Amino acid sequence: MDIHPTAFVDPAAEIGDGAIIGPFTIVHPNVRIGAGSRIGSHCEIGVPTNLVEPPDHRLIIGAGANIRSHSVFYQGSRFGDGLTTGHRVTVREKVICGRNAQIGTLSDLQGDAEIGDYFRTHSNVHVCKGSKIGRFVWIFPYVVLTNDPTPPSDVCVGPTIGDFAIIATMSVILPGVTVGAHALVGAHSSVSRDVEPGMLVAGNPAKPIRPTSEIKLRDGSGRPAYPWPSHFSRGYPDGALDGWDDDRA
Amino acid sequence: MDIHPTAFVDPAAEIGDGAIIGPFTIVHPNVRIGAGSRIGSHCEIGVPTNLVEPPDHRLIIGAGANIRSHSVFYQGSRFGDGLTTGHRVTVREKVICGRNAQIGTLSDLQGDAEIGDYFRTHSNVHVCKGSKIGRFVWIFPYVVLTNDPTPPSDVCVGPTIGDFAIIATMSVILPGVTVGAHALVGAHSSVSRDVEPGMLVAGNPAKPIRPTSEIKLRDGSGRPAYPWPSHFSRGYPDGALDGWDDDRA
Amino acid sequence: MDIHPTAFVDPAAEIGDGAIIGPFTIVHPNVRIGAGSRIGSHCEIGVPTNLVEPPDHRLIIGAGANIRSHSVFYQGSRFGDGLTTGHRVTVREKVICGRNAQIGTLSDLQGDAEIGDYFRTHSNVHVCKGSKIGRFVWIFPYVVLTNDPTPPSDVCVGPTIGDFAIIATMSVILPGVTVGAHALVGAHSSVSRDVEPGMLVAGNPAKPIRPTSEIKLRDGSGRPAYPWPSHFSRGYPDGALDGWDDDRA
Repeated sequence: MDIHPTAFVDPAAEIGDGAIIGPFTIVHPNVRIGAGSRIGSHCEIGVPTNLVEPPDHRLIIGAGANIRSHSVFYQGSRFGDGLTTGHRVTVREKVICGRNAQIGTLSDLQGDAEIGDYFRTHSNVHVCKGSKIGRFVWIFPYVVLTNDPTPPSDVCVGPTIGDFAIIATMSVILPGVTVGAHALVGAHSSVSRDVEPGMLVAGNPAKPIRPTSEIKLRDGSGRPAYPWPSHFSRGYPDGALDGWDDDRA
Repeated sequence: MDIHPTAFVDPAAEIGDGAIIGPFTIVHPNVRIGAGSRIGSHCEIGVPTNLVEPPDHRLIIGAGANIRSHSVFYQGSRFGDGLTTGHRVTVREKVICGRNAQIGTLSDLQGDAEIGDYFRTHSNVHVCKGSKIGRFVWIFPYVVLTNDPTPPSDVCVGPTIGDFAIIATMSVILPGVTVGAHALVGAHSSVSRDVEPGMLVAGNPAKPIRPTSEIKLRDGSGRPAYPWPSHFSRGYPDGALDGWDDDRA
Repeated sequence: MDIHPTAFVDPAAEIGDGAIIGPFTIVHPNVRIGAGSRIGSHCEIGVPTNLVEPPDHRLIIGAGANIRSHSVFYQGSRFGDGLTTGHRVTVREKVICGRNAQIGTLSDLQGDAEIGDYFRTHSNVHVCKGSKIGRFVWIFPYVVLTNDPTPPSDVCVGPTIGDFAIIATMSVILPGVTVGAHALVGAHSSVSRDVEPGMLVAGNPAKPIRPTSEIKLRDGSGRPAYPWPSHFSRGYPDGALDGWDDDRA
């Protein structure tokens, strides 16, 4: 355990073996950080809120996390092992997220979300309350998931994003929309209707364009670009993607 | 008054009774913070700039403010009582803002703006110089207000946003546009023409769709969703919205 | 040299004469900061990464820089003299940038980019890996440059932005696109095809609208708004724009 002398770590926080806490970082009580995790500088971890109650009031971060500088996590969320974040990430309460998530710089998880294993966001992604996100989902920069069909109101219908789905840069997913498994939302789209599994949609409002299976990789190989696990595994642990197409056989 | 031992508060700053200044926060001179306010960790408050002169050179924050961590406020702006911000908010000089503003995480007020009481932005909203914003305005994530019709130029014509207007996620308000009172800009719109009061506009470029009075709440009640104060009051102090429809009677 | 007592500056870092390092800022080894530079509070400068090797492993910042608070620069990038940034800027490794760059608040340079002199971004601009950006380029808020034509994949084809080009608010430049010199991309556009030099394009997908030479300044003068150096020089050092139209004579 290596806590920088300028960091404030509450004695009630549980810090795993070999964890590193960076300079000028604050760790509140009601926090458990797994073994071998690294928290960067200038973070605030376990920000108190009265929106959570025992027994779900702790922030639990699994083993081997790497949370980069200036990030803010509230109490009452839970991440599996292998979390990695960029800088200045915000995570509010009641996010329940699987293993090996990667959350990009400036991304903002508003709380109250269920997220599967191997979730990846690029920079500056906004995940609204009420989101249900599958496994191996990719979300690219400046995408916003929304939940209020008539803002402002007390109606909250978060989107549902299927396993292996991809949402490209600067798209908006409108309230209550379901994006099917292996679907692709093109850049700068506004998705107001459910997206069929394996379909490419694009535009404002987004319309179905073609099955993603018809899209070729731009590497001259002629190989299909989707489903993406057929050619892409950068950054995943060995075996993580094994069996991805079992249900497609 | 509770100033964390790691904070730097200039002796010339005026800090009200019961205010709390968090760890690693810097408060410059030419700052007045009202009683009972709370400034989070890692903030810089009252950043010096030579763009303001006495007597308007101070940063004045009213009573009961809650400024969350990593926020940056320049000298020369003024907020009424009850300001609340998210994390990593930036406020430049010459913002004159009413009471009970709520400014979301990552939002960026570029300075030189007039803003009415009960202004609310969600995360990551960009308010350009020259903006004139009414009372009870709502701005949702990733909205940008712009002011330069032929960028880059020395022409600056900020937008005007009427009382109770709502701008939904990822919309751009183009220079000089007036959005009427109680109007609604749909998500992902690009607003190049003035918007009539009480009208829904949407698209790129945005076009009038229908009066907002024809939009129903999605709660099964059949009630109209607009004007929103007819059904929504979450987070407002008791009585704040009283009389909202006096001029509609 | 003026290093705040709360800052951590590694003895191996080279800090130029008269430089100022703010409170709660960290400067790692493998950093060279030019004379007269000012690094704000809460920054992390020279973040270690194993993605760079000697002799290109250092972060080199020229003389007279002004890096504002909460910014993060990785090792292995290089900036000419006169760099200015807003707050909370992120710069990853292998950015090679000319003189007098201005990088706006919250902007995110993902690394592996070549950028000419006098580059200016406004707030919250995302520059992807593989970008090639000319001299005197302007990029406005919430613009995203992208590089992966079939995300996620291992294909990386960054965009090319010509000298004096302007990209307006909330536009997306799609992978591999070339934006010609002096071209203008209108707000909220999605640019999927190359843009001719001196052409205005707009829309989603962006289409050619007219030559920028036909656009007038909105100051009542009747003068053309483009090429912008014919009327605009705010913030440039004397003589910086001299000769901008030599190749147009």
